Amino acid sequence: MRLVIVGGVAAGMSAAARARRLDPSLEIVVLERGAHVAWAACGLPFYLSGRVARLDDLILFTPERFQRERGVLVRTGAEVTAIRPARRQVVLRGGEQISYDRLILATGARPRRDIAGAELPHVFTLHTLEDGRRLRSFLDEQRPRRAGVIGAGYIGLEIADALSERGLEVTVWEARPWVLDRQDPELTQLLERRLAERRIELRLGTAVSGIEPGSVQGVPAEVVVIAAGLQPNVELAAEAGIELGRFGAIRVNDRMETNLAGVYAAGDCAETTHVVTGGPVYLPLGTTANKMGRVAGANAAGRRERFGGVAGTLIVALRELAIAVTGLSVAQARQAGFQPVSVRIEAPDRSRYLGSRPTWVELVADRNTSRLLGGSVVGEKGVAGRINVVATALAAGMTLEQFAQLDLAYTPPLAPVRDPLLVAANELNKVLAS
Amino acid sequence: MRLVIVGGVAAGMSAAARARRLDPSLEIVVLERGAHVAWAACGLPFYLSGRVARLDDLILFTPERFQRERGVLVRTGAEVTAIRPARRQVVLRGGEQISYDRLILATGARPRRDIAGAELPHVFTLHTLEDGRRLRSFLDEQRPRRAGVIGAGYIGLEIADALSERGLEVTVWEARPWVLDRQDPELTQLLERRLAERRIELRLGTAVSGIEPGSVQGVPAEVVVIAAGLQPNVELAAEAGIELGRFGAIRVNDRMETNLAGVYAAGDCAETTHVVTGGPVYLPLGTTANKMGRVAGANAAGRRERFGGVAGTLIVALRELAIAVTGLSVAQARQAGFQPVSVRIEAPDRSRYLGSRPTWVELVADRNTSRLLGGSVVGEKGVAGRINVVATALAAGMTLEQFAQLDLAYTPPLAPVRDPLLVAANELNKVLAS
Repeated sequence: MRLVIVGGVAAGMSAAARARRLDPSLEIVVLERGAHVAWAACGLPFYLSGRVARLDDLILFTPERFQRERGVLVRTGAEVTAIRPARRQVVLRGGEQISYDRLILATGARPRRDIAGAELPHVFTLHTLEDGRRLRSFLDEQRPRRAGVIGAGYIGLEIADALSERGLEVTVWEARPWVLDRQDPELTQLLERRLAERRIELRLGTAVSGIEPGSVQGVPAEVVVIAAGLQPNVELAAEAGIELGRFGAIRVNDRMETNLAGVYAAGDCAETTHVVTGGPVYLPLGTTANKMGRVAGANAAGRRERFGGVAGTLIVALRELAIAVTGLSVAQARQAGFQPVSVRIEAPDRSRYLGSRPTWVELVADRNTSRLLGGSVVGEKGVAGRINVVATALAAGMTLEQFAQLDLAYTPPLAPVRDPLLVAANELNKVLAS
Repeated sequence: MRLVIVGGVAAGMSAAARARRLDPSLEIVVLERGAHVAWAACGLPFYLSGRVARLDDLILFTPERFQRERGVLVRTGAEVTAIRPARRQVVLRGGEQISYDRLILATGARPRRDIAGAELPHVFTLHTLEDGRRLRSFLDEQRPRRAGVIGAGYIGLEIADALSERGLEVTVWEARPWVLDRQDPELTQLLERRLAERRIELRLGTAVSGIEPGSVQGVPAEVVVIAAGLQPNVELAAEAGIELGRFGAIRVNDRMETNLAGVYAAGDCAETTHVVTGGPVYLPLGTTANKMGRVAGANAAGRRERFGGVAGTLIVALRELAIAVTGLSVAQARQAGFQPVSVRIEAPDRSRYLGSRPTWVELVADRNTSRLLGGSVVGEKGVAGRINVVATALAAGMTLEQFAQLDLAYTPPLAPVRDPLLVAANELNKVLAS
């Protein structure tokens, strides 16, 4: 039995590791077209800012080490150019054919760059290690003072903040009138104010028509980074007759099975299910890729495991400020057919007498069922933990009444006696009761 | 209609505030025997260490302010000496009688001090503002160099660390062979090592028979603090015929009703329900007192609300180190009739390339049902957030499989791509599958 995995970053390597653990006799081959496997893409903005000193620090392990320790054949520079499902073969650039019994597609995604001027020498994306090397060299050597970032999703915001940390003045363009792909005007305003203090200007609701040498839309920018979303790498799959889903990524069931027998997909190339709506969603994130990869690897190795889907949890760390969302915003909840009610509160993140700082918590619930639908947290401390509590409640399908009674940790230096989450829940309960 | 509330700290003031909000016409009287209401008992160790400069910083609001802003009559120095349920009256020291339509008992708890020598002038407890004032004055004036702390529950540990932060050498005695009232040898060892680095020595499994001037059990100690647990203040209730529960605190149902019509109890004087065992539990904590007080206040004001109980979440912050537990330990789970399996893992608290520090996560699940039963988290960052995720999962009755798929936040500076919680869950799933 041979398992072939196409793609060796997050989902692919998780799948390989899991399959190996469950079936020591399986022959496993990872085909990665790049030079590296298992590297931390999410660390790139921190290499840009200088907080990660060396690009090599982002490489979690080498192909050689993975091969030695796990007994998985890892081939880099191995680009699959075709899948032949009828023959159960993949074809590599150069013509080599490799047959498989099971196939996992973990082909990832690539940054959208369909903007005029994207090919100019001062325009970058930040998606691969090579991207990181090129952009940081450019910054170190050219010493630009003004930057443009196209896209105010989490990657765009992290890049903008990293550039600002390096001393650049930054303008961020976003076609939609809000940040983080979340139609939430208050969250957007909250962030806008904080970023302005760092000389990061948000230009929202402004599609960039083109990039000129030295400027974007008339605003000077000696360096430009495009972070306008990801596009799943599905060409190989589509040509092989593998079905795509509503968002253009590979459609899989909860076992990560595609429509072709023995062919799985996982990670940024595939859609998954949203735990709140129950419907499909495309949210390419490292954690999700790892989880999907694990499930694909387990099933490809003969287990029967399911992936329950995602809540859409996302956190952005902009130096000491963190912004996190999970589940549905009010607008998304309405689109999904719920009758959302929401509150947003500001509350101290720990006991006031120990120097608390404000935290903002938004909760969204369904008026009919009182079910919690989503939330956001902004603050300096405890943001990841608080959004995770909301994400856990979403996965459990909790009502707001249940949520309001959670037994959350209290100690004055870390959390106040009434946790901001519970303050928000009690406020939203009042709205529901009215 | 008059609502009388006996006790004006956490539960009492929460009850008063909630009842007032729900029924603006209700006459509400709070009777507090001390000089202050609504003060933050949990802040006392931080006053000891000096991180809270003034004792007044721990007073959240004055009786006058509460009276002015909420229209609640708050009487301090008003000690209730008897309840006469047949006449619906309480009697104050001095003989004054106050009649009630509804009565909420929020009489709190007091530190156990049944140790020979407890009355010596160098022996303290830390339960009231006056306790805090006396102990800090003693430390400031007498400048002791060696301290003894009796009890290694969360209060004892916080006091020990505060004294150590002031430069004292500290010995902590605990009658049981473990810390935090949790029969968990590994957690105890983990803590023991860390405390030893701060010149805090734990003497476990050692009941203190008596305190001598200048020493405890032959170990020099110029100052001694007794933190050997809390005893609920139930004498008033018991004399009035109010039933006590298994742990000697007032027995209430999920509406905070005692066995006497119209009489409620909430906070440290009452028992509550454990969300994992479904059985009664006595866990006197500030957050629980607030929640119970809110429910008592709502029901006394004519609403019908329920309190779902507690998971037993507890966190102790010892400078940068935090220790948190929730739900059942292995030993507690076994006693409760489960077949517990558990793992404890050490994992980085954020991405390694951003200077991660170790976090220890223990998860306990039931072998038969795979239901999550409890957990503990030790580390420097993110401990409160992580234990809260476990507490949320416990309240929801999640299985380990569900838990392992939680969509937790990931960003390199705050949380690693595989959160320690999920690393632990995956490890425990392997144990369950074996």
